[in-house]
Amino acid sequence: MLEKLFKPSSIAVVGASRNRDKVGNIVLRNILSTFRGKVFAINDKADSVEGIRTNKSLKDVGSVDLVVVAIPRTAVPQVMEEAVQVGAGAAVVITSGFRETDEEGAKLEEELVSIARKGGVRVLGPNTLGLITPDMNATFAFADVLKGNVAVVAQSGGIGVYMLNWAQRTRIGLSYFVSLGNQADIDETDIFQFLAEDLDTRVIFSYLEGVANGSKFLDVVPSIANRKPLVFLKGGMGREGAEAAKTHTGSLTGSGDLFRAAVRTVGGIQVDGLEDMLNLAKILTADEPIRPDILVITNSGGHGVLTADAIESAGLKMAALTPRAIDKLKEVLPPQSPPKNPLDLSGDADSGRYRRALQMVQDLDCTKLVIVQSLPMVSCSEVARVVLGFKGREVVTVVMGLDEDAASRTLELAKMPVFRFPEDAVRAISYVLKRKPPQRKIRVPQPIEEARSLVEGRKYVPDYVAMKLMELYGIRTPRWAVVESSSQLEAAADKVGFPLVIKASTDYPIHKTEMGGVVMNVERDSLGHAYNQVSSKFKRVLLQRQLHGVEVFVGGLRDPTFGHAVVVGIGGVHVEVMKSLSYALSPVSEDEALEIMSESKVTQLLTARNRNYDLGSVVRAISTISRMIVDLNVKEMDVNPLMVNETGAYAVDVRIEL
Amino acid sequence: MLEKLFKPSSIAVVGASRNRDKVGNIVLRNILSTFRGKVFAINDKADSVEGIRTNKSLKDVGSVDLVVVAIPRTAVPQVMEEAVQVGAGAAVVITSGFRETDEEGAKLEEELVSIARKGGVRVLGPNTLGLITPDMNATFAFADVLKGNVAVVAQSGGIGVYMLNWAQRTRIGLSYFVSLGNQADIDETDIFQFLAEDLDTRVIFSYLEGVANGSKFLDVVPSIANRKPLVFLKGGMGREGAEAAKTHTGSLTGSGDLFRAAVRTVGGIQVDGLEDMLNLAKILTADEPIRPDILVITNSGGHGVLTADAIESAGLKMAALTPRAIDKLKEVLPPQSPPKNPLDLSGDADSGRYRRALQMVQDLDCTKLVIVQSLPMVSCSEVARVVLGFKGREVVTVVMGLDEDAASRTLELAKMPVFRFPEDAVRAISYVLKRKPPQRKIRVPQPIEEARSLVEGRKYVPDYVAMKLMELYGIRTPRWAVVESSSQLEAAADKVGFPLVIKASTDYPIHKTEMGGVVMNVERDSLGHAYNQVSSKFKRVLLQRQLHGVEVFVGGLRDPTFGHAVVVGIGGVHVEVMKSLSYALSPVSEDEALEIMSESKVTQLLTARNRNYDLGSVVRAISTISRMIVDLNVKEMDVNPLMVNETGAYAVDVRIEL
Repeated sequence: MLEKLFKPSSIAVVGASRNRDKVGNIVLRNILSTFRGKVFAINDKADSVEGIRTNKSLKDVGSVDLVVVAIPRTAVPQVMEEAVQVGAGAAVVITSGFRETDEEGAKLEEELVSIARKGGVRVLGPNTLGLITPDMNATFAFADVLKGNVAVVAQSGGIGVYMLNWAQRTRIGLSYFVSLGNQADIDETDIFQFLAEDLDTRVIFSYLEGVANGSKFLDVVPSIANRKPLVFLKGGMGREGAEAAKTHTGSLTGSGDLFRAAVRTVGGIQVDGLEDMLNLAKILTADEPIRPDILVITNSGGHGVLTADAIESAGLKMAALTPRAIDKLKEVLPPQSPPKNPLDLSGDADSGRYRRALQMVQDLDCTKLVIVQSLPMVSCSEVARVVLGFKGREVVTVVMGLDEDAASRTLELAKMPVFRFPEDAVRAISYVLKRKPPQRKIRVPQPIEEARSLVEGRKYVPDYVAMKLMELYGIRTPRWAVVESSSQLEAAADKVGFPLVIKASTDYPIHKTEMGGVVMNVERDSLGHAYNQVSSKFKRVLLQRQLHGVEVFVGGLRDPTFGHAVVVGIGGVHVEVMKSLSYALSPVSEDEALEIMSESKVTQLLTARNRNYDLGSVVRAISTISRMIVDLNVKEMDVNPLMVNETGAYAVDVRIEL
Repeated sequence: MLEKLFKPSSIAVVGASRNRDKVGNIVLRNILSTFRGKVFAINDKADSVEGIRTNKSLKDVGSVDLVVVAIPRTAVPQVMEEAVQVGAGAAVVITSGFRETDEEGAKLEEELVSIARKGGVRVLGPNTLGLITPDMNATFAFADVLKGNVAVVAQSGGIGVYMLNWAQRTRIGLSYFVSLGNQADIDETDIFQFLAEDLDTRVIFSYLEGVANGSKFLDVVPSIANRKPLVFLKGGMGREGAEAAKTHTGSLTGSGDLFRAAVRTVGGIQVDGLEDMLNLAKILTADEPIRPDILVITNSGGHGVLTADAIESAGLKMAALTPRAIDKLKEVLPPQSPPKNPLDLSGDADSGRYRRALQMVQDLDCTKLVIVQSLPMVSCSEVARVVLGFKGREVVTVVMGLDEDAASRTLELAKMPVFRFPEDAVRAISYVLKRKPPQRKIRVPQPIEEARSLVEGRKYVPDYVAMKLMELYGIRTPRWAVVESSSQLEAAADKVGFPLVIKASTDYPIHKTEMGGVVMNVERDSLGHAYNQVSSKFKRVLLQRQLHGVEVFVGGLRDPTFGHAVVVGIGGVHVEVMKSLSYALSPVSEDEALEIMSESKVTQLLTARNRNYDLGSVVRAISTISRMIVDLNVKEMDVNPLMVNETGAYAVDVRIEL
């Protein structure tokens, strides 16, 4: 579909300047020095540029596959018309000053896209650095990168250049490099789709500030992530960064929490910064398998201690040595060092001791994290050469000391992962291990008929209707009754049982407690008094059986980018204080529900102090709510609290906005 | 006091081997090539070593200042006797195999220290790599480090060598390097004290697994940290690392939480890993001041976005631009880029634009974080040269791209801090900004006489006595009464008031709730029933007025290393689940109490939802408990919960162990 963009047989550069400092000249030179097909240079003021004859206008070229545009913004729509006329399949619009700049630019952007769409021209950009393929460099960056298996997709030109420089410095080979720019037409998902099919590309790294089309992303990316690792670095995770991104690529960054949930759903890996991305690349571009448990092998006790600390704080597991491995290792270690994990080979270990130790553990099902400090008895390079002999045996190496550069190169050339700090190695390993299997969310609304008729035409759902909705969906509620006059009180209270809670019942959400609309712990003898207290201010009153248990927060929301999602956390006031919330996209499977319950520490709360609270009922409630918000197209809802005890989970207060 | 160790006029090497691979030979060579005073080589099998005549025995040398020992462990005590005889002031015992190895070694270690102490010889080690001073290298590490202003103190030999290698690679100059080893005599605090006085040393970096003498540390280190920055990396912060440290330097690592509290008290900086330590060194060894607010200046929007994210997530503040600065910056920036923070100079910025922007903001009271991505219009080196002109203007630079190495060197030579990743720069800045002023804790027990007599001779304090203790110390309790027979019940209940709680009252702590010893929400009509329920199992019963409010946890403990400390967190079951606890050493000032309340989110809980709960009473309770545990030499106590509402803070359940 994007063949003309990625594999054109001819390219026209519109705005091919003679001035060697201009973007239009640089991109032409880059193309001329890399591309073997036909190249046209369009310039209406000069006869030749960089040794090739120019055409005055794009219309003069007859036909062309790909048009690269580097002219002032106001002239771009006209050129798009011409591109349509000459049958171009794609255009790379390098020109900036569109949506990211002002209203005028936004209009021009709409105009150029509408022309291109009508004429069947796919557009990369505007405001893009261009793209690099195995057969051409159509960017204005001077980049001398090797051909290889890593694809880079960047929404920011600056980050794009940084990644190109990184590839150049570290001699990592790239298959494709795409600068997305404003994504007026072609978006990140289109590019991912192409790269998924591409045989040269083994791993995809991306920098995004926002996702252009959330539902397309959720639809398509899981099957891509199933085929190759897909890494995301997102700019604008925080408030300050999001603010900065708005003026930068004109991106609405969207909620960082939802982005994280979306990446988890599609089976991607989200890193927390550039350095983490480069460190993770060391593992993903190498051929070494990574296993969940880690065995640390070192010649410095201190390094072993720090590494064990790092493994624990990353939530990873130290491997347990088998009795057999311990026996074998005893032959290798000096008598004063009993075999343990971390395995301290001692400061007098030479490379032979490293080799023997690796031989003894090579069949253990764990990641072997080999750490070498250059000491009088051994250099990093010697151990690096030993490690080469254990390729494929799940070995990750950390080289520390004077010759660490040389030792690094030895291992990198052999495609074995190597780091300078144990903490970096552990972080990179943890990204790989924490990746979840890709999932496609099926979001077909299938509302229960009665539920639909209950909410029809409403923006807010009155509390007692919300209770009925919960029950229709099979979520339990505490026994309740609505009382509209004091004559109904006794019978209603008998139905509900004591102790009970009396609450104001309103059609719109209010802060009931703050407005004196809640009385707790009501027994029979205080019923009348409590009722009068609330009913003096509110006409309708809700009686609810008071339950004991733990308060859990379950919310639902409709995200403008990624659609319906649920959020779970420890309930009551702790929601706001601890901000220990975890998100998942709807619908949520029971596995995912368990996952976000444990991430947000809800599971820990429900099982603390040997409590036997009903975890299963919470899992079912989360999963049910995640389907309900899709069925009824809920804009926002809170169940706070969902009261959980030994007998189940009960929706106590429910607020729904449609 | 350690003059003979650090500035000897003569050195004897005992175990000066002819074998060039042996430690005793290497250390001799290192000394010979650096030290200008008299050197004796002790070897009873050879006449000369490395070109100098040997003595058969240490006794033969007449007199010597410093003895370096590298002989088998069993011979070490005898050599210590001889060192005493020849009037040595200090010994460096390189030999290992002592406390870190086995019982036998532990005994030998005690023996050698006892001989040395009696004879007035100070001992570094055993199991040390040695030390380096501006005048000598008395280690067995081959290290070619520059002389400079950074002191390194390491408990682990491997980490010590790593730091030496680091200094060598980065051309950072060292003043002193000390490998502590087992700290049988000289400990980290002794070394810090020497370095505090030393005029060459401007900053001290240390790696510790445990502190040898906590009270000495707390006593002495604050005044050191007042004079120069003191950085700690601790091995064994986690469970896994602590386990590994035990077999490594024989260290009991102690509690990581308490270590963190101790470092805060003494005004040190604790880093989370080796890489963080090296990054922090970039700032501490440079001359650039660091201000609390940060202005980001960049030529890549994406870098700006990621940096703003990093600043926010480190809890630091983006600087606000003054209207005047905005006006001035408008002259510098292209029209489509309004001046903001991050200040995006645009991808077409040349080094002149960087210079003009820096001129416009150089007087702003903030840290200027200058980030340059090498782009066609500008290289890192060009901007590095521009930055040189703003030395002393609070500039921290991040260079990214092809020539980052060269640009780094330019700035490092000028002692200006420079990084490769914005995230690293932000982390390093945050360590500097989060440092607290050093404090010396005065821990003189001044028990209230009545309190002392209440606890005298007890291991556990019965609950009602604990209540009285609280009251003696001015901490409020809910109204309470003890009931030992049903005849007292009515009167006691009237005194306490309703609703009340009935609890088993025991002399030893038990799990009251689990054992059916607690009934809540007791009103007059259920009093008799509830009383019977509890008193059927427990002879003595406590009535307590039931209060509403927020549950806070306040604990006190006696740490084997650092003595009395308090711990604060969100109370009830959340203590265990969220593990959001914060520690401070006793006695705790009101400022510190506020600090740990906010760190553990207690403050946030007390002020959430516009609550007007009494923060001041919690501050006073924490500070009072911190003095009380010193006064009464408490081993462990919990107030859980301290119930806080608008009227104050009330100790509801108190458990004290002496």
